Amino acid sequence: MSLANADTLRRTLATAVVVPVTPFGADGIPDWDTYATLISRLIDQGISVVTPNGNTGEFYALSQAEARQAVETAAKAAGGKAELLAGVGHDIATATEAARHARDHGIRMVMIHQPVHPYVSAEGWIAYHTAIANAVPDLGIVLYLRTERITGAHIAALADRAPNVIGVKYGVRDATRFAAVARDAGLDRLTWLAGAAELTAPAFWVAGARGFTSGLANVSPALALAMLRALRENDLPAAMNAWESARRFEELRLADGSADNVSVVKEALAQLGLCRADVRPPSRLLPANIKQEISEILASWGMK
Amino acid sequence: MSLANADTLRRTLATAVVVPVTPFGADGIPDWDTYATLISRLIDQGISVVTPNGNTGEFYALSQAEARQAVETAAKAAGGKAELLAGVGHDIATATEAARHARDHGIRMVMIHQPVHPYVSAEGWIAYHTAIANAVPDLGIVLYLRTERITGAHIAALADRAPNVIGVKYGVRDATRFAAVARDAGLDRLTWLAGAAELTAPAFWVAGARGFTSGLANVSPALALAMLRALRENDLPAAMNAWESARRFEELRLADGSADNVSVVKEALAQLGLCRADVRPPSRLLPANIKQEISEILASWGMK
Repeated sequence: MSLANADTLRRTLATAVVVPVTPFGADGIPDWDTYATLISRLIDQGISVVTPNGNTGEFYALSQAEARQAVETAAKAAGGKAELLAGVGHDIATATEAARHARDHGIRMVMIHQPVHPYVSAEGWIAYHTAIANAVPDLGIVLYLRTERITGAHIAALADRAPNVIGVKYGVRDATRFAAVARDAGLDRLTWLAGAAELTAPAFWVAGARGFTSGLANVSPALALAMLRALRENDLPAAMNAWESARRFEELRLADGSADNVSVVKEALAQLGLCRADVRPPSRLLPANIKQEISEILASWGMK
Repeated sequence: MSLANADTLRRTLATAVVVPVTPFGADGIPDWDTYATLISRLIDQGISVVTPNGNTGEFYALSQAEARQAVETAAKAAGGKAELLAGVGHDIATATEAARHARDHGIRMVMIHQPVHPYVSAEGWIAYHTAIANAVPDLGIVLYLRTERITGAHIAALADRAPNVIGVKYGVRDATRFAAVARDAGLDRLTWLAGAAELTAPAFWVAGARGFTSGLANVSPALALAMLRALRENDLPAAMNAWESARRFEELRLADGSADNVSVVKEALAQLGLCRADVRPPSRLLPANIKQEISEILASWGMK
């Protein structure tokens, strides 16, 4: 990857990166028409980077064939009007194959999911990501971190070996830890995203993040974009106003070890008539009291 | 599944269940001939249940095609002389397909890996396992638990819906928690295995486990079988002697968040000339000081 291209992608990534849901039909099969409609809606409302096959898209509940279809549908729906960041994962060969498939559909960036292998050494973490990144040197690579065991030094060592690593979705919620890791890895070398979404965005921004990932934006792109605008303008009170608006919705998603992380988003979309609420196990449909609370949140957002 | 068959499988499972490594060649590709030889060696030395595609077999570093090959090779190597318990995982469709593939090769039991999906609700955990178990009603199903969030009541609810659930590999290391969970689920209804191997086996046995899973047995089947014999004979001092012998090896495997869990086993096998030490990322090759310590452990076991 040329330095100019890497720099372009790093700048493109510094935004509200939305992870779309994968809607299912009554038969439990992905409803690709609705998927395309949802992605078009995001782009029409101002979202510039979309991540098919992220966790909010229930990546680990999709077969590999379905994940490929998600990429193809997203690429067609985006039609060059937004950048796609395709999630890839599993073993090295499978992740590499998925990255090449994304590239073949015009996608320029992939996010490597945190390895699900239960035995992760730091050296092996570096080797895993290096192998995938080196196999697709023309793609921008975004790392997804959900563990404190990987330090800034480990990330820097990886970036030395794989110059196409352009960004990090830092999903550990501790802003102080984030500040240290980003500095140790090189704050300006990579685009840092608050990987645990809106509630972590202001504190992470202060520490050097220049974007955040969002599931909430599936429902309200406007709220995520209000947060982004406030942060870019260094208007911290406005950012915290957006934080207050996002709070209860995000807390419902975080409850019980994030059990309902996707279910809450899909229930809100269902209440807005945008897709069915169905999720695949191990997610669940929501009980009535949570549905009611989501209804009240949507009303508070002026959406109902 | 008939009650008689379920009962037979429950009794078969109550033993030292060995999870074989998947050896790689110098080219990084699985060395299936050596895999078959290693499995034959286990069976010849008295192991009666073998788990292809468990975590010690680096399941999450294998492609789905490689995982199928592991099942086929193991089935041929076992040749009816030992029972196989095939690991299956990923999304429901992929896990179900893998279970059917195992059945088509004469395998009677599958272990469902803990879902790697980051958002697990208890209801969804039950639904996930029910869907897979109901799709292969003629196979015995073993659950693999690595989280305290699933209670005995959840396991009982699953067993009500899927009568072919015959056992639980309980991988949480807390013996008191295990005692409560097993009783709440029904101690006699399922075969309970100490799922975190030899070091947890004595305390779990006291609480009602009737077997344990083992990676150490790849190296020394005799040590795992000595532990099993002592526990069956209620000879707790002898069990703790086996525990002392296993201790340092297992502690090396547990260090640094289990980073070297598989690497330690493969290094020991390499020192014995049984396979290469290579592992796939995110595992790593071991530094010299740990290799040296493994050498000393093998000597203490009379194997070097």
